[in-house]
Amino acid sequence: MATANGSSAALEEVEALRQQLESLQTTLRKKEAELETVAPYNRTYGRTMVATVLESDSQGLSLVGKTIRVGGWVKTGREAGAGAFAFLEVNDGSCFQNIQVMVEKAVAEEVGGLKSLTPTSTCVLIEGVLAETPEGTKQKVELKATKVVHLGSTDPAEYPLAKKKQSFEFLREKAHLRPRTNTIGAVARIRNALAYATHRFFQEQGFLYVHTPIVTASDCEGAGEMFQVTTLLSKVDEEPEVPPPSPEELAALRSQVAAQGEAVKAAKTAAAANKEDKEAAAKSKAEVGTLLKLKEQLTKAEEAARNAGGLPRTADGKVDYSKDFFSKPSYLTVSGQLNGEYYACALSNIYTFGPTFRAENSHTARHLAEFWMIEPEMAFCDLADDMQCAEDYVRFCCRHILDNCRPDLEFINGMIDKGAIARLEQVANSPFKRVSYTEAVELLEGVVASGEKKFEYPVSWGIDLQSEHERYLTEEIFKQPIIVYNYPKEIKAFYMRLNDDGKTVAAMDVLVPKVGELVGGSQREDRLDVLTQRIAESGMPMEPYAAYLDLRKYGTVPHSGFGLGFERLILFATGLDNIRDVIPFPRWPGNAAY
Amino acid sequence: MATANGSSAALEEVEALRQQLESLQTTLRKKEAELETVAPYNRTYGRTMVATVLESDSQGLSLVGKTIRVGGWVKTGREAGAGAFAFLEVNDGSCFQNIQVMVEKAVAEEVGGLKSLTPTSTCVLIEGVLAETPEGTKQKVELKATKVVHLGSTDPAEYPLAKKKQSFEFLREKAHLRPRTNTIGAVARIRNALAYATHRFFQEQGFLYVHTPIVTASDCEGAGEMFQVTTLLSKVDEEPEVPPPSPEELAALRSQVAAQGEAVKAAKTAAAANKEDKEAAAKSKAEVGTLLKLKEQLTKAEEAARNAGGLPRTADGKVDYSKDFFSKPSYLTVSGQLNGEYYACALSNIYTFGPTFRAENSHTARHLAEFWMIEPEMAFCDLADDMQCAEDYVRFCCRHILDNCRPDLEFINGMIDKGAIARLEQVANSPFKRVSYTEAVELLEGVVASGEKKFEYPVSWGIDLQSEHERYLTEEIFKQPIIVYNYPKEIKAFYMRLNDDGKTVAAMDVLVPKVGELVGGSQREDRLDVLTQRIAESGMPMEPYAAYLDLRKYGTVPHSGFGLGFERLILFATGLDNIRDVIPFPRWPGNAAY
Repeated sequence: MATANGSSAALEEVEALRQQLESLQTTLRKKEAELETVAPYNRTYGRTMVATVLESDSQGLSLVGKTIRVGGWVKTGREAGAGAFAFLEVNDGSCFQNIQVMVEKAVAEEVGGLKSLTPTSTCVLIEGVLAETPEGTKQKVELKATKVVHLGSTDPAEYPLAKKKQSFEFLREKAHLRPRTNTIGAVARIRNALAYATHRFFQEQGFLYVHTPIVTASDCEGAGEMFQVTTLLSKVDEEPEVPPPSPEELAALRSQVAAQGEAVKAAKTAAAANKEDKEAAAKSKAEVGTLLKLKEQLTKAEEAARNAGGLPRTADGKVDYSKDFFSKPSYLTVSGQLNGEYYACALSNIYTFGPTFRAENSHTARHLAEFWMIEPEMAFCDLADDMQCAEDYVRFCCRHILDNCRPDLEFINGMIDKGAIARLEQVANSPFKRVSYTEAVELLEGVVASGEKKFEYPVSWGIDLQSEHERYLTEEIFKQPIIVYNYPKEIKAFYMRLNDDGKTVAAMDVLVPKVGELVGGSQREDRLDVLTQRIAESGMPMEPYAAYLDLRKYGTVPHSGFGLGFERLILFATGLDNIRDVIPFPRWPGNAAY
Repeated sequence: MATANGSSAALEEVEALRQQLESLQTTLRKKEAELETVAPYNRTYGRTMVATVLESDSQGLSLVGKTIRVGGWVKTGREAGAGAFAFLEVNDGSCFQNIQVMVEKAVAEEVGGLKSLTPTSTCVLIEGVLAETPEGTKQKVELKATKVVHLGSTDPAEYPLAKKKQSFEFLREKAHLRPRTNTIGAVARIRNALAYATHRFFQEQGFLYVHTPIVTASDCEGAGEMFQVTTLLSKVDEEPEVPPPSPEELAALRSQVAAQGEAVKAAKTAAAANKEDKEAAAKSKAEVGTLLKLKEQLTKAEEAARNAGGLPRTADGKVDYSKDFFSKPSYLTVSGQLNGEYYACALSNIYTFGPTFRAENSHTARHLAEFWMIEPEMAFCDLADDMQCAEDYVRFCCRHILDNCRPDLEFINGMIDKGAIARLEQVANSPFKRVSYTEAVELLEGVVASGEKKFEYPVSWGIDLQSEHERYLTEEIFKQPIIVYNYPKEIKAFYMRLNDDGKTVAAMDVLVPKVGELVGGSQREDRLDVLTQRIAESGMPMEPYAAYLDLRKYGTVPHSGFGLGFERLILFATGLDNIRDVIPFPRWPGNAAY
């Protein structure tokens, strides 16, 4: 069909404009930095961020001779010149680099001498004059202190991270202090950059950010792996409002009710025998009143007996969720996809970015009980467009951190994973290969047949690809990111669109070196009849999917989406081994401290 | 002190650069729009977003004569010309405006005639030629259909939102379809814009986005209003693995153990009497073995009896949380502040933006059980800088939606709240007044004394300002946003920094017309001794605050922060009355559907 796409001349014009814009932005950024060195909202303390000095175009040289204040935490401090002065490496988190501060003895006098400044994690705000360092020094400038404006001491004998090298395991137990370390600080900046890159990518493409709910009573995904959210347990360990009756008390009450029933019957018979007898009528009425009161007592006692364990129960002994906060069993979400579809089928292109939960009793380095997920969903979008979106998004993120987190990545590349930068550059620069599931299986069968590779799990058409297969495909066979698509319907979810072959669905996974599966997505089944049949075939009840089916009933639209586990992306970007180190406060079985 | 601030000439240069940049950006945007009309990731379907046409600089005129495809949901459709053609108002969510599509009878033939296109919420993808509309028409262009590429029918007899006007209450019950309505669609776009404005504001100021945890076992805030997160309830309604014993069985087991204890004693005595008697020794050993087995049986039976209600219990009858997923009672977060402080006291300036929870049994139009909150936290920041940050942030948000959501705001202004745009403009353009708590109380006492105003709650120094007081201050006395600061310490949290007067703390609330309190913040108590005393005074245990106290122990820093309820900001921006209508899937007591 004819679209309004432009000529190559117009394309070139736009490209030129883009370059002009970029260079103008850079100029503006530099000018702004020179104009105002004090950090926003640090005006009272007059602090200049370390990044403003060291990451400026001149690496601080344009500020030489100026008086500024630098504040942060001492990474390392040492006395020199036989106690005449001290060098402090100060880090404020604004960039990976520390700024070197030189403090003479006299300047430190007022705050207890040089020794009070040097311990690791001491907080300082130091006013000084920026000076050029001798040729050959790592940094071009250092601060010569004239005044210690703030001192927050740290006793090195007590500070738990005083030692240079700490294991990641140990740092996890000090999650409130670990962002002061090189690695966790770098991860925090990279995580921030990837989060902002996510928003920028989707916003610039016209997607709407939708907040899908965290707590949900919809039980579409099977409650097995879900956390329950409740207010019922808070009362379990309290004294009950109505003390539960003993079995004897209950039995006694029941006999009373039975006896009173007899009394009522007798009184009624007497009253019926002589309708004129007002006294008999009154007695009958009184006996009925007593019976009602007794029955009410019994009902309450039975309820109290049922609730004896502290949990409200229905008459059949099950937990009475009508008494819970949401009047139904409610859970923490495992995916915002269904909610995302509701919004995409009204507002076209949307994305979610929020926390997601799994109550799996998993202690591996790859699983968290709480993690963040990005789930875009697009109307009028098929699998090909879905794959393109996933590819563009991942590559945008890689490019973004290469451009914005260079010093952090260089540290990571040097200390943690020698391949980190090369991997990011490869992903940012090369298109992802598309490989159908069928082709992928044939390739794997080939290397098995030739004896080139042995897998723990055997390979044949129909299997769910294991991590070992996925990583072999991306790391060994293709040596680059790939997208595997069109999976057998048996191994994929009911909502994925059935292909015309009747045996595969329009699903795709993005596989990348180091991590394996990074993205999983699909075109959604938009045909009401096919979807209904797929739900029925999978043996699930239809009722919980009423709203989901409504989308196919009222103005159905071809649509697609995918999910990306945010921490997986950070693992990929940093090469860290344990997912618990790429989220500020990790949660896993037995661990929800802080 | 001397900072490196620039001269006014440099200021002017930067301002000029900024303007140049902005105009260049606008030019680029327009060129790009002309160049490529097909939406990203809608390429297979070749769809052009309605915003690309109607919100372009020429309002679509530059595309007249081109063939494009437009897809979305029919807002209204009507046949005209005695059934010769139909007009469809099509909305795709990319902007508030609908595009008008004119379909001739012959074009609709293939898809069942014009009647199949006109029902509200029908999904269509229509190829056509963009044509100029007659002078005086609301929009400059319409699409003359040449082909219906996709049709997703809607049966108007069944579609629940077929009627024009629906109450907000009714729409809440159809949360999966309500984004197709004008108001909820506009709110979704405004919400998206405010979320992106939030990220842009803080990122451009160099703040790091930190994901604070959702599930937490830290009970710092008192568990009264918190939701509990658990995996214990999932087993309550299942058959127990070990059936609980009856009291008789338990009693019988206990007697058996006691009897066996006697038997062991007797056998040991016999064996001791004759140490040579191997048979007696063997018997004694056997009796001990039997006793151990019986005791194990008893322990298991007692445990089964304790767990009879399905919940694991400790020996004292309390819930045994060591068996819960996180090995401790765990809750949904009510604030990320403490976690944010941990990161600010390492990385300087950070912000959170995530879901937050309250298990309050509140059914008002102002409360949600699940809502989103923004919480910045800044090192080397006092209350003055904190107030400035809150003001700049709120004003940036208002400016951003005025610039980016004009048609949505105009609809809101016309249909929902006549003052919405004026309110946003006032906030965007005028600095917020600072008023100390003491002054504020004096002003309120003044209007009460003069008889100008009666309040439900009496006013005097020391009271917690009520909503009626807050709104009177901002709406009647100042008629603009204000910041009230330095509150009595008795009515504020323990962690707020004690002022030198000993009776107020460095707290602040931003009050705005229509909503009242929008932001609450404070400088945090950074002195270990004062903080310890404040915790002790408030009668709380010290132990849960160990990590929080560590921040003051190791390199303490003056720092401040605030919290803004995101839905409050949207209420303020849209003038909607009920907070349940400004979040996609609202949660309140009894409601967690979808």
